[in-house]
Amino acid sequence: MTKVYEVDRLIRHGHTDPAGIVYYPRYYEMINETVEDFFRDVLNLPFGHLHLEQKRGFPLAHMETDFFAPSRCDDIIRFCLTISRLGNTSVTFDIKAVCGDEVRLRARPTQVYLDLQTMQALPLSETIRTRCADYLSPTHDKE
Amino acid sequence: MTKVYEVDRLIRHGHTDPAGIVYYPRYYEMINETVEDFFRDVLNLPFGHLHLEQKRGFPLAHMETDFFAPSRCDDIIRFCLTISRLGNTSVTFDIKAVCGDEVRLRARPTQVYLDLQTMQALPLSETIRTRCADYLSPTHDKE
Amino acid sequence: MTKVYEVDRLIRHGHTDPAGIVYYPRYYEMINETVEDFFRDVLNLPFGHLHLEQKRGFPLAHMETDFFAPSRCDDIIRFCLTISRLGNTSVTFDIKAVCGDEVRLRARPTQVYLDLQTMQALPLSETIRTRCADYLSPTHDKE
Amino acid sequence: MTKVYEVDRLIRHGHTDPAGIVYYPRYYEMINETVEDFFRDVLNLPFGHLHLEQKRGFPLAHMETDFFAPSRCDDIIRFCLTISRLGNTSVTFDIKAVCGDEVRLRARPTQVYLDLQTMQALPLSETIRTRCADYLSPTHDKE
Repeated sequence: MTKVYEVDRLIRHGHTDPAGIVYYPRYYEMINETVEDFFRDVLNLPFGHLHLEQKRGFPLAHMETDFFAPSRCDDIIRFCLTISRLGNTSVTFDIKAVCGDEVRLRARPTQVYLDLQTMQALPLSETIRTRCADYLSPTHDKE
Repeated sequence: MTKVYEVDRLIRHGHTDPAGIVYYPRYYEMINETVEDFFRDVLNLPFGHLHLEQKRGFPLAHMETDFFAPSRCDDIIRFCLTISRLGNTSVTFDIKAVCGDEVRLRARPTQVYLDLQTMQALPLSETIRTRCADYLSPTHDKE
Repeated sequence: MTKVYEVDRLIRHGHTDPAGIVYYPRYYEMINETVEDFFRDVLNLPFGHLHLEQKRGFPLAHMETDFFAPSRCDDIIRFCLTISRLGNTSVTFDIKAVCGDEVRLRARPTQVYLDLQTMQALPLSETIRTRCADYLSPTHDKE
Repeated sequence: MTKVYEVDRLIRHGHTDPAGIVYYPRYYEMINETVEDFFRDVLNLPFGHLHLEQKRGFPLAHMETDFFAPSRCDDIIRFCLTISRLGNTSVTFDIKAVCGDEVRLRARPTQVYLDLQTMQALPLSETIRTRCADYLSPTHDKE
């Protein structure tokens, strides 16, 4: 049974534009923060420790996003994360953001495990791979 | 001959993270600002006028982005915009961001022409369609 | 006994700069969000309702801020809000942000109650005045 | 004769909120970018070089800001920088932002010259002191 990692976000005044809806770059902050929360809570890798102590990072290589319906100030959006692909050096997340029954957006970021000193990709550690496996979708992309 | 709309952006301290590279949501601000500049300079539709006077907008429906190489503070990045598809109510832009000879990212946002009062899609006006046509790539997606 | 309104914020990767410390405009987002949370939780005035339904706002007129020590990714900062002055049409907040025993910053924003349609200042309502009074510091500035 | 360092900024869609006016944390980004531009253009110290090569920074210690009138999308705002105080290890800037004849805001950030490895304040170098002196207001605060 695939686990789903979920985190709620309040849409704030500062996220929204003169049309009263979320200015889309703010959504990418929320998407990145969802992955940051998953790293801290599930992989036990807070981003401060990862970047400043381990000198490693997970920069974005590819992103696909569909926006289905707008969000407004004071909406509470649930970001639901699974994993659609565990590569040798990368992870592809599948994140749906919903408000009640309405799907607001779906994002699929592929992020690469990187040594920040050499800027070379690193194989995912066994710990990362094992902990991510619980969140791997049954319909995940086979390598 | 397809026209290319180009605009330069300076990478600033505030765009970058503890790894010294651009925090990716800042790129989406730059991508959106490139489209905003195209609307003002080419379509003669500054976003303030479009949103506040015409009560229309061009929210994002779909985005694909590839990130090829990181950018650092003080880099000057050229954002080069063409159009890959002119739909009935939407435009798909194709934006390459380069620093010298190096392609840093490629983004393909599809944005929908919207009546902000009814939140219904609108057919692109003849003026928008004609002005966009100059930037339509010869290899554009045929409908 | 003056009440103190408190809210915790996690310092995130995206708040920090190449020096590994918070890029200061992000602190102003957190300061504004603390006031936004106070409006929702204490005044029962969520910013979406205030701006979009009531067509009123509380824009900033004056801000003084002291920064005492830097914050880093993964720090949890407690924002502690009291009120130092209740004017006829404005409120001056006094916000201290602490991490453990260390005071990181102190901000004193003065915000004006405004009719967004006329852009004229409005007298604070009795409800706002009464609910704010619980948070008024005993050493508040007398009018 | 005091020099004034001036730089223009376009107010963009993404700077503005549902009231159609600038969300104030975006102003602090512009204020910081004005100082960043002054460092690059006048002090010959681009922030990337300063932070990543020299391992030095100029973090904010104190800020006072007055907001006089709101700004809207497509406004072009001129940020005009002088210096009101040259301390031993710090600089206090005086930045007025105007649109045509209207003063929109005035900001007075005090920033401290810092060794990022020891987090200790450094005396301003002779080069910084000399170049800043041209911009020192005749009514500057005497030490």
